Amino acid sequence: MNIQLYDTTLRDGAQREGISFSVADKVKIARKLDELGIHFIEGGWPGSNPKDTEFFHRMQSVSLSNSTLVAFGSTRRALTQAEDDLNLRDLLEAKTKVVTLVGKGSAEQVVKILKTSLDENLAMIADSTRYLKSEGKTVFFDAEHFFDGYEADTQYALDTIKAAAQAGADCVVLCDTNGGTMPSEIGEIVKVAMKSGVPLGIHTHNDMELAVANTLAAVQAGATQVQGTINGYGERCGNANLCSIIPALKLKNGIDCVSLEQLTKLTEVSRYVSEIANLPPDSHLPYVGASAFGHKAGMHISAMVKAEESYQHIDPSLVGNSRRLLVSELSGLSTIVYKAKEYGLDFASRTAQAKEVLKQIKNLESQGFKYDNAEASFELLLRRAQPEYHPPFELVDFMVVVERHRRLPTTSSEVTLSEAMVKVRVGEDIYHTAAEGNGPVNALDEALRKALLQFYPDLAVVKLIDYKVRILEESEGTEARVRVLIESSDGEQEWHTVGSSTNIIEASWIALADSMEYWLQRKATTVYRDQSSGIRRKNG
Amino acid sequence: MNIQLYDTTLRDGAQREGISFSVADKVKIARKLDELGIHFIEGGWPGSNPKDTEFFHRMQSVSLSNSTLVAFGSTRRALTQAEDDLNLRDLLEAKTKVVTLVGKGSAEQVVKILKTSLDENLAMIADSTRYLKSEGKTVFFDAEHFFDGYEADTQYALDTIKAAAQAGADCVVLCDTNGGTMPSEIGEIVKVAMKSGVPLGIHTHNDMELAVANTLAAVQAGATQVQGTINGYGERCGNANLCSIIPALKLKNGIDCVSLEQLTKLTEVSRYVSEIANLPPDSHLPYVGASAFGHKAGMHISAMVKAEESYQHIDPSLVGNSRRLLVSELSGLSTIVYKAKEYGLDFASRTAQAKEVLKQIKNLESQGFKYDNAEASFELLLRRAQPEYHPPFELVDFMVVVERHRRLPTTSSEVTLSEAMVKVRVGEDIYHTAAEGNGPVNALDEALRKALLQFYPDLAVVKLIDYKVRILEESEGTEARVRVLIESSDGEQEWHTVGSSTNIIEASWIALADSMEYWLQRKATTVYRDQSSGIRRKNG
Repeated sequence: MNIQLYDTTLRDGAQREGISFSVADKVKIARKLDELGIHFIEGGWPGSNPKDTEFFHRMQSVSLSNSTLVAFGSTRRALTQAEDDLNLRDLLEAKTKVVTLVGKGSAEQVVKILKTSLDENLAMIADSTRYLKSEGKTVFFDAEHFFDGYEADTQYALDTIKAAAQAGADCVVLCDTNGGTMPSEIGEIVKVAMKSGVPLGIHTHNDMELAVANTLAAVQAGATQVQGTINGYGERCGNANLCSIIPALKLKNGIDCVSLEQLTKLTEVSRYVSEIANLPPDSHLPYVGASAFGHKAGMHISAMVKAEESYQHIDPSLVGNSRRLLVSELSGLSTIVYKAKEYGLDFASRTAQAKEVLKQIKNLESQGFKYDNAEASFELLLRRAQPEYHPPFELVDFMVVVERHRRLPTTSSEVTLSEAMVKVRVGEDIYHTAAEGNGPVNALDEALRKALLQFYPDLAVVKLIDYKVRILEESEGTEARVRVLIESSDGEQEWHTVGSSTNIIEASWIALADSMEYWLQRKATTVYRDQSSGIRRKNG
Repeated sequence: MNIQLYDTTLRDGAQREGISFSVADKVKIARKLDELGIHFIEGGWPGSNPKDTEFFHRMQSVSLSNSTLVAFGSTRRALTQAEDDLNLRDLLEAKTKVVTLVGKGSAEQVVKILKTSLDENLAMIADSTRYLKSEGKTVFFDAEHFFDGYEADTQYALDTIKAAAQAGADCVVLCDTNGGTMPSEIGEIVKVAMKSGVPLGIHTHNDMELAVANTLAAVQAGATQVQGTINGYGERCGNANLCSIIPALKLKNGIDCVSLEQLTKLTEVSRYVSEIANLPPDSHLPYVGASAFGHKAGMHISAMVKAEESYQHIDPSLVGNSRRLLVSELSGLSTIVYKAKEYGLDFASRTAQAKEVLKQIKNLESQGFKYDNAEASFELLLRRAQPEYHPPFELVDFMVVVERHRRLPTTSSEVTLSEAMVKVRVGEDIYHTAAEGNGPVNALDEALRKALLQFYPDLAVVKLIDYKVRILEESEGTEARVRVLIESSDGEQEWHTVGSSTNIIEASWIALADSMEYWLQRKATTVYRDQSSGIRRKNG
């Protein structure tokens, strides 16, 4: 059995409250979905807003290995020609191989919402499909409100499928738009719809906590395209969660929708998307959550030791996750020795030192630092523990001032000013300087850079390319701890650093300083290596 | 059809990471479950820890109207007498009418985990049940690992049911302990187990996001007792969520498990339990989440006005929830007029004003403001557009200083200091003050509060309960715009405000000021209304 996985995180998923993807975010997610082996990636609704139009333009220069990009839009307006429809023209201009057309699959919706005739709706579906097919597109038709429509007027709902199928649609996707249909109904209705002969897809929402079950019921009844989103993101209670559907299809139903190797990326993809969405990862998500294979109860843990499968329905490594015994700290010592070796450091023969670093890490983690997304900071921790390490600079002081003055009574002339002063020591020299910025962190960044460039002019190539803030313990209000994650690049490589504090300026300061120290020490090491091997670097 | 609702929030639910109920918490939750009309409340495992023992003791003086309290514990140990078993004695001492016994429903578990004979396990089930029945208890038997056991050794799994039934168990509860069984299997297996003649229950876990579907499949196959937890709390991915199961049974299957009046308490119960568990309520929960009936996309809002049911599978008031139209970049003039009416403002007859506000919103949104999660800021925008609006205070200036000094050469004594100065005008008075904080935003919050309390001492009840930061356009690095969202509470109500700027301090400042202005203007309005109706408020 062949199942097509169709991801709509970038369109329907982005309807979730709080999500607002930039074009760059969308490109990053598309690349990640490609790695996972998703067959179709719905990128957005071209023409509906400038961001989506820009995304499709940007994607023309991105090549995907496994995925096909899809543009989404509605059928032509009532009583017009498909050829003249602006929306259909925008769809063509997105230059994707596949287009998904959304239209009404319910008589009531046609009359109440579209306010047009039932026949005109069928013509809108057929014309739009035929026109896009004539332009060489693969066309999927999303029959919105199909299941409610089927309950109220079965024949008309089936007629909408027929209209799309006869016009050449490659797949008709049955939508449970308000998420109110039960799995047994879904199964029965899909079986009837299968008689149309056109391949069917399923698009469900989680308003009853049944979106995954409804999707699996539709597949069991013959649907071959599955639409959903990463982490089940979507408006209201979310869309069908591909992170639960994919392993169910692959591991429980034995359907070869992704390879076993691709399946191991599932947890990583889930966390990556939540990171980009700037939503805390839900640790209780099936398969991919940090708690999905976590065991707390004493009874269970002793049973776990006796028989792993007692409280685990699958081997967590199949989806790239891992078991977590919550009772005891698992020794991270071997991890440290292993990672140190990767960096060319020897901790195997320095166990006391490794233990010291482990203690330091545990302590920092309890203060909100987190290293799984900030390996450069982690590497620096290990390097600093080596007695022969000499830091390329030392931060002495900083001060940041943010000031807003209003010239009364002309209340409109408000100016907010941000300035930073830094003092940096390199060897025996101390450099004291200041800079302005459009915010306090930016001012600090500018001042630190200005100081360090005096000693290390090459540092000019280092740019900050991403800056993220996460509030830890949100219930603490403005007193909460924050974690800052910074991504930097020198045009060749990217690296990530972390800082944490109750003070966002200090957390940013730590992550900024780590970023620059990381690059400087790596460069020093490289130069040293190059010299010892007799090779001279251009920028040495 | 009669369905018994069995809640295990206080036992299995408490296994969720991060939950730790006190005895008082458990009593409160039990009272609330009673209001909802839950038939059986599993209170804990007496004897397993002092808290659970104390809870059952305390509950002897609490009278419940609808619910029956249940004590939970395991069958007797292998090769002992039921009469001498300490665990069974603890169960009797809990003095509940009903006892739930847990035992192994899987041959593999008996051999691998209990390390006893298959026959001895059957004897343990039968003896323990018979003994508790002889003591006058109603006895439910939880057949742990039943579904996995059935797959591996069908006959033995069925024998465990028979052992309990013949010993007089009033219900045998089939457990999908590791959450790995699919709905279709659950349905088939329950049908076979029904032949035993004893009433059956179902206990599922959410490891595949199918716990609700599995529960409903078991009910369809004949199970009459449903076990679950409020909000689906439970270890790993949680237990079956009663907040989704109850409305599905009542509204979709037409099963009279609670009254319509009890059903309207569902949302309140969900939030109450999350409050006591000290977990942020999940706004995306089906039926009871704050977003469950929230509508964001512009297309949907215009459709909503035309036909409510388009994007709502039930009337939210049935479960005590309400519809929420989210103000977003996609919405237009009709939303503004509609929302204004909700706030008691008339924009319908002031179209030019409404258009002006819409323009202002679009402009603010392009600067990073976003109102779908910050309705209080939105309401203030509309109020400020009324010519008769007088703001309760006006912000004049602020200054924030963050400073870190290091006493060289003792590099260890680092102190980071955050201070804020604010100037506020109320009427003709200007108040100028300053405060410290553990970070710059906290310092600003403290200083603003200090200034306003001079004029409005009642403001002391307002607390910040959540503070979120989101970086917009992350690729801009430290120059990026940030959006700050603040949730505030006066102990009775919560409200949300937003600020946006490239400067995190300024963004926080805007959201903080909105929070306080919102509360002050609402209070003023309330006082005014009360006075005009001749009622005097205590704190007026």
